[in-house]
Amino acid sequence: MGRDEYERRMMRAGRAAAEAGLAGLIVTPGPDLVWLCGYRPTAVTERLTALVIEPGRAPRLLVPVLERPDAERAAGAGALTVAGWTDGADPYVELGKWLAPQGRYGVSDGMWALHLLGLQRSVPGGGYAALTEVLPMLRAVKGAYEVERLAAAGAAADAAYQDVLGVRFAGRRERDVAGDLARLLTEHGHSQVDFTVVGSGPNGANPHHEAGERVIQDGDRVVLDFGGLKDGYGSDISRTVHVGEPGAEERTVHEVVREAQQAAFEAVRPGIACQDVDRVARRVIKSAGYGEYFIHRTGHGIGVTTHEPPYLVEGEHLPLVPGMCFSIEPGIYLPERFGVRIEDIVVCTDSGGRRLNVTGRELAVVA
Amino acid sequence: MGRDEYERRMMRAGRAAAEAGLAGLIVTPGPDLVWLCGYRPTAVTERLTALVIEPGRAPRLLVPVLERPDAERAAGAGALTVAGWTDGADPYVELGKWLAPQGRYGVSDGMWALHLLGLQRSVPGGGYAALTEVLPMLRAVKGAYEVERLAAAGAAADAAYQDVLGVRFAGRRERDVAGDLARLLTEHGHSQVDFTVVGSGPNGANPHHEAGERVIQDGDRVVLDFGGLKDGYGSDISRTVHVGEPGAEERTVHEVVREAQQAAFEAVRPGIACQDVDRVARRVIKSAGYGEYFIHRTGHGIGVTTHEPPYLVEGEHLPLVPGMCFSIEPGIYLPERFGVRIEDIVVCTDSGGRRLNVTGRELAVVA
Repeated sequence: MGRDEYERRMMRAGRAAAEAGLAGLIVTPGPDLVWLCGYRPTAVTERLTALVIEPGRAPRLLVPVLERPDAERAAGAGALTVAGWTDGADPYVELGKWLAPQGRYGVSDGMWALHLLGLQRSVPGGGYAALTEVLPMLRAVKGAYEVERLAAAGAAADAAYQDVLGVRFAGRRERDVAGDLARLLTEHGHSQVDFTVVGSGPNGANPHHEAGERVIQDGDRVVLDFGGLKDGYGSDISRTVHVGEPGAEERTVHEVVREAQQAAFEAVRPGIACQDVDRVARRVIKSAGYGEYFIHRTGHGIGVTTHEPPYLVEGEHLPLVPGMCFSIEPGIYLPERFGVRIEDIVVCTDSGGRRLNVTGRELAVVA
Repeated sequence: MGRDEYERRMMRAGRAAAEAGLAGLIVTPGPDLVWLCGYRPTAVTERLTALVIEPGRAPRLLVPVLERPDAERAAGAGALTVAGWTDGADPYVELGKWLAPQGRYGVSDGMWALHLLGLQRSVPGGGYAALTEVLPMLRAVKGAYEVERLAAAGAAADAAYQDVLGVRFAGRRERDVAGDLARLLTEHGHSQVDFTVVGSGPNGANPHHEAGERVIQDGDRVVLDFGGLKDGYGSDISRTVHVGEPGAEERTVHEVVREAQQAAFEAVRPGIACQDVDRVARRVIKSAGYGEYFIHRTGHGIGVTTHEPPYLVEGEHLPLVPGMCFSIEPGIYLPERFGVRIEDIVVCTDSGGRRLNVTGRELAVVA
């Protein structure tokens, strides 16, 4: 990833801003900044760092003066102008000088309120809108390079899952199995491990349970959900395993979730609305009588972060476009009893969906 | 730290909000939320989580419904009401129902712009201000419990510094010494290592250089700046060492910085404006002829984060109050040559400053 690719991205972003009726974009540290110009400050602090992209002019980056040498070493720095502001100056006034006084700008979702309020004060005639809302597609449609990176991250997560099927579950704490997952993701090339959920027995019924002190028992259903970053791109996979042979109801619930995941996957094609993919999964689970136990959306986008647009959720009318990458992860959560979730990353192609996780989705039995 | 202490903090915050003319506070995930109610969501995502504190009523926490079980387990959860919102609902409308339609609220500095813009849309008559600006003192004045925790974190950082004086510098990469610092902080009880700056030779002249591939040479000046969290409270210390015997100019520059740091420390007393502590340090360095090479503020507050108000910077008129904890860290940076920085954490007491780093500030010679 060299200067030219970053320059293309920033130019594309400028054009997209113009098409959305925006004067430009104001991007603060985080995934948008990394994606646009390759700059990741050593820490995100109260000191303003902001990239301004306006259609038809060279992008400009404002940084605290003492971080300027770092910013100038970023991979995309050659394609932009870097300016520094000094402690004691008002950075919002400095940034405001770059902006159209009545302009409407798209801003990073994660821009600090401190900075947005500073801008609203220094440029009172300006308007601001979150990038997710005005340019949800900015990073959502991945190029071939990005799909390749996501596929490699997915293959590493698959390999970690295959390996973890061979470790001991019964008699060990959830935290110990989570440690195995972190080690395996790292061994398979991840530079960052973002989450290692191990929800055993009743803990599996809380979709955001991480991993705790509970000792896994023979007969437990265990939800595994793990991922992170490999070469700058995300992985995110869920599988549900059973310690020893499962009973009839456990098999049934697992099969319902597997069918819902498969049906949603088969619904993926260019032009279908995000919410319709969610509805397909939900319909399968509802028909089986478990509708009230599917308590989250069906999926989320993935790229340089592990959660980003598009969101597969009721109310999201955005149509899928080839190159979009997202999770499909329906689940059933029976309070105080157990949970089941099955999740793959899927890319929308011209001819339908392609899974970036290809490891088996059948109910695996572990020891 | 139990429910009662969190309840006291939330009540104190409500009173402070009223005194500042605010209808209340809206706090999203991050250090304010941890400090107020002990809740640290497993991930900060685009899904709104917000604590609303209004004077005279019980605090309320709005969370995504699937994170509700986690929120209810937070140490301060017993002192607040937890409500969940479901994917597909508009969380800003839900939160808006809790707010005074024309109320002015203090919001977390780090609240995502996505959320602030959502609130500005759903409660168009409301006003919002960053907590740092309207209630800079909210977490700035530490109680005895907190000073004790900061002192323990400081002692651990001091111990790590003493240990690192015994490792080999010459012939090893900056990154290797940084690894030593991370290991030593962890061995001395840190649960999180936030930064391990090793700026050798010319890299020391960039105050935000972290640690890189440069191999440290005999005769190098090396800036060390490291810290993190121990038992939930921060450490942050800088010392500059010399590989082998230093020359005359290097001794002089180090002595100027040491005197500036000492003078600023001696200036600490209740009632002095933050900017005046900065000025004291700056005056010493300017008198010695190095004024243009001191290119950052003198210090920043520390608590449950390693950078927070108060800031010791020109323009900050806030007076110091007993219980405030902050760094004093003047430096001189000679471009392309070397840098010197000396930093201690200091608490303001009734009778003046007390250092929470007590390890020697003389120029140490390493091998």
